[in-house]
Order: sequence, then C-alpha cells, then structure tokens
Amino acid sequence: MGWRYAALEERFKRLSDLRDAIAILHWDTAVCMPKGASAARGEQLATLERIAHDVLTADETGELLAGAEAENDLDPWQRANLREMGRRFRRARALEPRLVEALARAVNGCEMVWREARQRSDFALLRPRLEEVVRLVQEVARVTGAALGLEPYDALLDEHQPDLTDALVAPLLDGLAAALPPILDAAVANRRPARLPAGPFPVERQKALARRLMTRLGFDFGAGRLDESAHPFCGGTPSDIRVTSRWREDDVASALMAVLHETGHALYEAGLPRRWFGQPVGEARGIVVHESQSLFLEMQICRSAAFVRFLAGELNDTFGPDPAFAPDNLLALWHRVDRGFIRVDADEVSYPLHVILRWRLEKALLAGDLAVADLPSAWNEGMQDLLGIVPPDDARGCLQDIHWPAGAFGYFPCYTLGALLAAQLHAAIRADLPDLDATIARGEIDPVLKWLRSRVHERGSQPRLAELIVEATGGPLVVEPMLDHLRERYVT
Amino acid sequence: MGWRYAALEERFKRLSDLRDAIAILHWDTAVCMPKGASAARGEQLATLERIAHDVLTADETGELLAGAEAENDLDPWQRANLREMGRRFRRARALEPRLVEALARAVNGCEMVWREARQRSDFALLRPRLEEVVRLVQEVARVTGAALGLEPYDALLDEHQPDLTDALVAPLLDGLAAALPPILDAAVANRRPARLPAGPFPVERQKALARRLMTRLGFDFGAGRLDESAHPFCGGTPSDIRVTSRWREDDVASALMAVLHETGHALYEAGLPRRWFGQPVGEARGIVVHESQSLFLEMQICRSAAFVRFLAGELNDTFGPDPAFAPDNLLALWHRVDRGFIRVDADEVSYPLHVILRWRLEKALLAGDLAVADLPSAWNEGMQDLLGIVPPDDARGCLQDIHWPAGAFGYFPCYTLGALLAAQLHAAIRADLPDLDATIARGEIDPVLKWLRSRVHERGSQPRLAELIVEATGGPLVVEPMLDHLRERYVT
Repeated sequence: MGWRYAALEERFKRLSDLRDAIAILHWDTAVCMPKGASAARGEQLATLERIAHDVLTADETGELLAGAEAENDLDPWQRANLREMGRRFRRARALEPRLVEALARAVNGCEMVWREARQRSDFALLRPRLEEVVRLVQEVARVTGAALGLEPYDALLDEHQPDLTDALVAPLLDGLAAALPPILDAAVANRRPARLPAGPFPVERQKALARRLMTRLGFDFGAGRLDESAHPFCGGTPSDIRVTSRWREDDVASALMAVLHETGHALYEAGLPRRWFGQPVGEARGIVVHESQSLFLEMQICRSAAFVRFLAGELNDTFGPDPAFAPDNLLALWHRVDRGFIRVDADEVSYPLHVILRWRLEKALLAGDLAVADLPSAWNEGMQDLLGIVPPDDARGCLQDIHWPAGAFGYFPCYTLGALLAAQLHAAIRADLPDLDATIARGEIDPVLKWLRSRVHERGSQPRLAELIVEATGGPLVVEPMLDHLRERYVT
Repeated sequence: MGWRYAALEERFKRLSDLRDAIAILHWDTAVCMPKGASAARGEQLATLERIAHDVLTADETGELLAGAEAENDLDPWQRANLREMGRRFRRARALEPRLVEALARAVNGCEMVWREARQRSDFALLRPRLEEVVRLVQEVARVTGAALGLEPYDALLDEHQPDLTDALVAPLLDGLAAALPPILDAAVANRRPARLPAGPFPVERQKALARRLMTRLGFDFGAGRLDESAHPFCGGTPSDIRVTSRWREDDVASALMAVLHETGHALYEAGLPRRWFGQPVGEARGIVVHESQSLFLEMQICRSAAFVRFLAGELNDTFGPDPAFAPDNLLALWHRVDRGFIRVDADEVSYPLHVILRWRLEKALLAGDLAVADLPSAWNEGMQDLLGIVPPDDARGCLQDIHWPAGAFGYFPCYTLGALLAAQLHAAIRADLPDLDATIARGEIDPVLKWLRSRVHERGSQPRLAELIVEATGGPLVVEPMLDHLRERYVT
C-alpha cells in the first residue's frame, strides 16, 4: 500500500468523523433539541458541512487520487475504496460553490413555502419557488452529468444510488405500470372485513414491545437506541444507530410497523464491514439497497403470515387479550389494499404506482417537457391513469411530498427498486432456506439475518450495484419476484 | 471595522460552531450514547478538536490578528474581542503539537489507571502515570508561561480563568486558611439534630419538581433541557443549554441541590450577550466567574432560610406532608457542617480547606518541591493541619479527585475564588435590594437575576476579571463577605 492511498484513507476517515458528528447532530435536532436552538444548530451544521466539503474538494485530494491510481499493490477492497473516493471527489468538484449555494438557498426558501402551500392546498403559492428549484436542479444535473459522463437525469439517480441509470429504471417501472393494475383490482376485491384493536395502548408498553422485537430481530442496544421524533427515521452511525418512531395511544400498529421498517435500515448499517468503518467502501451501497433492507424486513418478513402469527402472541402478552389480535384478523388489517391519494400511507401494491407517477413527472419537468405551472393537472391525469382516482385538492395531490421542494429529484425510483430488490432477495433466501416460514413463526430471524449479512451487509460498497444484486440473488434486478410476491399475498 | 477584523470574526464564528458541535456531542456521550459507540465517539471528537486547533493556530490567524491591531476604528467590544482572540491564538500556538499529543496520551492512560487505583486504594499503581503527567504539565506550564510572559503556575491558572495569578490567589486562600478553622469549630458545635425525609420520592416527581423550580429561577426550556447523567453538569451552548442531574428514590435533596447548582451555570450562559454569541468576547469570563454563578444560586440563594421556607412548601406539595419538610428541619439538615474526607461531599465551610490543601500540594508538585511518591503522606499531613482529620486510606485521600490524573492543575483555586465572588456579589445585591429576603421567600428571584444579568452575565468577556469584579461589587475580591456569610449562617 503506497503512501498516497494511506493518506487518502486518513483523509476520508476525517471526513467520516465529520459525517458522523453531523449525523448525531441531525438526530439531536429531531429528538432532543429545544426549538430555540434551531438557528444556531443550522449554523453548526452548515459549518461542519462546509469544512467537510473543503476537505473533500481540496486540490490535494485530487492529487492523491491521481497518484494512488498508479500504486499497483492495492487489494480488491482498497481498489474499490479508491473507486468510491474518486466518485465522491469528482461529484463534489463538479459543482461550483456558487451553484451549490444558490440551490441550498432556493431549497431552503422552497421548503418553507411548501409547508404553507400544502397546508392551504395552494399550488400557486409554491409555483415560483419550485420553478427556481427545478431550474437550478436542471443546471446541477447538466453540469454533474457532463463531469461524470452521464445523462443529466442519470447524474441525479447516481447521487442517491451509485451506478443507477434510467436505462435500468425504465423497463422495471414500465413493467410494473403494466402488471400492477390487475393485481391492484384483485387485491381490492379480495379485502376481508376486519376489526381494529380497541386500545388504548399505553405508549410505554408499546415502546417496550418495540424494544423487545428489535432485540429479537438482531438490533444491539449496546450500539444503538430507540427514541421518538415527529417522523420515524434511522440515523446515527454504524456503531451508534439511532432509530426513531412516533407513538399514539389509540393505534397499536403504525408506530410498530415503522420501527420494524427502520430496524431493517439499522441492521444493514450494523452489519456493514467493521474493518472498513470510516471508509467509503465500508458504507452502505446506496438508497436502493438501503430501502431493500427496510422493505425486506417490514414487508417480506414482518407482514408475512408466519411472523404475524408470532406478533399476535406478543400483542396479547403486552396489552392483554383482544379478539382483534387473532392472526387472521391482523392479516386482514395489515394486508388491506386501498386506492389512496397519499404515497406514504400506501400499501405495497399501490405504492409503486405512486412512484411511477412521480418518476414520469420529474423526468418531464427536468427535460422541460412539463412546465411547473402544469404540474397539478398532469398529476391528476397521471393518478387517473395509474390508480383510477383523482385527488380532491393539490394538498392530497402534487403538494404532498417534500422531495421536489427539497431539491431531491431522482430519489423516488429508489423506493420501488428497493421493493423489487427486497422481493428478489426474499425469493433467493426462500430457495436457500426451505424451513423459513416455520422459523419465522417462532419469531426467529437469525438464519435470515446471517444470509443477508454475508450477501449484502458485509459487502459494503465493495461490489458495484449490479454485481451485488447478481451475486446475492443469482440474476439482475427484475420485476417477477415482486409480482409473484404480490400475487401470492393479495390475489390467490 | 477593517476587513481583517471582519475576517477574524468569521473565523472565530466557525471555531464557535465547532465548539458548539463538540459540546453537544459531549452531552450526548454522557446522556444518550450507547456504550458500544465510545471508541468511535472518541475519534469524532478528536477530529473536531484537531480541525478547531488547525483553524485557530493557522498562520493566517496570526497575520489577521497582527493586521487587525492596526485597524483603529474598533469599538470597545470589538477591541475586547480582538484581545480575547489574541489570547487564545497565543496560548494555542505556544505548545508544539508533539507536547499536546504527549500530554493527551499521558492523561488518557493516567485517567484509566486512576479509576482502578482509586477503587483499590492503591497509590503505587497510579504513581508512575502521575509522575509522567506532572512532568509534562511542568513543561506545558514553562513553555506557555514563557510565551505569555507568565510564571509557570500562573500560565495554568490563566488557562481556566484568564488573568488569574497566584499573586491574587495566595492572599485569599491564605486568609481563609487562617480564618476558617474557628468558624468550622463553631459550626460543628452548633449542629442541631434533624430528621431525614422518609421517602421514597418517585423519581418522575422529583424531575417534575426540578423542572418547575428551574423555570421559576428563570431557566427557559425553549432553549435548554434537563436530563440524567452519571454526574450532574451544565453543558451545551448558550442557546441550547443542557443541564443534567442524577436521581435516587431514597434521597430528595441531593439531585435537587445539584440541579439548583447547575441552573446557576445555566443562567449565566443564557444571559451572555446575544449580540456576541459565537465570538470570544461573548463567552463566559472564566471558571471563577462561572463557579460564582452556580455557588451564588445554590449557596447564597437556594440554601438561604428564606428560600428553604419556599422550598418546604414545594416539597410538601410534591410528595405529600412529612414533618421532615418543616423549614427548620430542612435548614438543620442542609446547614449541617462536617469534617469529612471527601471534597465533593463537603459543606461550604470546610470546602475551601479541601481546596487550599490541593492548591498547596499542586504548587509544590509543579515546583519540584514535592515528589509524587511523597504525595500520600503530604496529603495526610495537610488534612491533619487544615481539617484535623486523617483519611483512613488513599481512596479517601489523595486518590479521590480526577483533576490531576486528567492534567488539570491550577483548577482547584477557581472553586473557592468562585465561592468568594458569590458571597461578595450577594453582599452587593443585598445592599442594592433591601427587600431581598421577603422576595426570595416567595420563590421570586427575578430582581436578583436582573441584577446579575446587568452586572455579570451580559458583560460576557468584555471586561477583564478584575474590572468585572470591581464594577459589579464595588471593590476587588476579598475574603470578608464570605467569612461574614459563613459566620451569619453557621456561627451566630
């Protein structure tokens, strides 16, 4: 190992320490910070981000990268690490500070206006702000794409999931758009009446149950926490994972399901290769793979008939008997499919259709084929086409998500590609572990976790996306395992 | 305002953001962090500290400072800000990185060994480690002193309390050493029998009472929190103050008194001049002044007969009636004076004697007049001289404090100078506000807080230490107000 590569490892370790500090401060902002501190916290975070940006984009980083390429004694992990370092450097250097700052300012203003616009269902209020964000994101996509040799939209996808391109996304999402509607029809027709658990469900007992289940699923409270925040998330660092959820006394399921979902993210972070903590190659492979892990745990495992049987017993033990805790009733509740307006409330059958709508619209916006002014009508037409319903107002339509006001374009497809990967991983695991259902019905997921660790978690960012998927599942990402899963759960 | 001064403000604001991030991470370490994250947290903090050190000691900082001195259009606050910037720069530049790192390593090792040595009461175990720390601190004191034009021990005092010198400390501590023993004798003789409140005292109710009292004393929970940690402290930042305490179900007083003490620190931080947040001149004036604020609130106000009357009512309301909550009984308990071995458990009469012992011994250690090997016997002789008791073992003797193993020499005197300043401030306030006792008996400290804000808090680091004291109290720091206070409370 030459001195240039060694110097790069030290430099990226420093960046990782900064990122870790930022992650804990973000958690603190959501969980602990008193309101009066938000302006000062914003400045602390901006300073840390700026320092990290300066360290990453320094000329010296580029010189070390160029020199290290010629050091020929690197092992495959070191070589992959160098590749990921270079990717970050080139991406960060692609944009002039002027453009980064202009986008940050525009996004900041747009997000604030978006909150009010959504509340008042007033798209006209948002429009000029969103136009500015779209204009700047177009420039970012063009400039970054030029620097990385990517099409503009691919440059955005690649930010969230390295190596993801629209050539990979399009056949998958178009395939789902064609195949899902009849599944959705059948799933809605197959709904069974179900009763809601009565409650109230004391929040402290809900939290204790969540902790017990997390522990059982493999979460280590010696290296992480569970807390409360306005929106559930999984943050922190691989050795200090901060999961949050939000509890309500009258609802036993939603906080719990959020915890199970976030625990999927958490187990991925915890399983990353310890030897490479603090280096780019030791980090998660991207948003698609991250989403695959949360959706795998929530959708494939925890909402399965086998696990729901186990969960029914836990609910009885925790809150006392309730006929609504019968496994069959819980399944009827938790496998209920709806044509709804809101993406975040959607079930796994209709969710991809919400994503497809946004993917089509954001591409049209960025290509200049759709004017921001025409977004509400295009949204409503798309909802009619894909889901057969039209939102009664823009609050329940094109104003519902923060992503675009926040400048996040090219993110939505990751959700659904993650769901596809989750289903494909599950099919591969079931082929490898024939007794899986019986094990899961006992609340044991150790064999599953072991499988995921060796095939996904411990690989970090050493393989590229396509390699990871082929090596873990035996083939490239396709829609069939997901469609099989949905037909099995909702149609037959 | 010239461009050089403006550039310095920007640079020190960045440093302040880094310090704030470090402060929140320290709080997180003590309150939230799972054990498994401690190594990674140590690396995050070291990286942030190193970045801050690099920004502060950069050649550019020195060039800007030299240039800004010649910019003649600064107002008194800006000029004071420049003075404090220069102080930090010179202090940080005085030490070579080699020496800073050697001390950090030695201290790290010494602290770990100290924990075991104290537990086993085994001074021989600590001795070689402490010898190394003393040797390195001697070098730090010599080198820093040479750079700053200070005697070596003064260079250490000045780190904790700028402008503090042994020429100021010695007459005060020697004066107390002469005057306290008869007061201590009388206070011990004057003890009255008292009964302990029976309990148990549910911890949640204790915490709720603590929050109510903090609010009443002026703490703003919109800009701060109260949490639990192994040792009470006040951390965070001026707009996000993090107070902690530690609760036990069988003890109603100790967590509460710790909260009141830390609230004194918190009110100081919250009252610092908002206009100068993020600049050196906007920070607290030093450890002596900080200690004066916590001891003022705890000792002068909250343990006064007037406030204890108010507190008795609060305890009754919170935990139900208990004859032990009679104000007279609480006073007998909380004004109880003891000759004890342990500094942190000491009452306000004997506390200074513990400090005087340490001050004499640390000066002798640093001057080379006392060998580390002879510390236990010197300690025990000093305890005999000052307090008339000899510790039964070194765990209750020279192994009890973390300060020296942690490399903190020149810190102990600040505690007692803070107590002197608290008493002197209290005497000045009583002269200004004749109805004080009646107000305090109603649990109202607004007039006191207003007085402190204008005379101490809002002044930040604009005045130097001596100016602050003279302008706030009418004269330089002396022992008489403290002795008057102790005689009034414990002797008459």
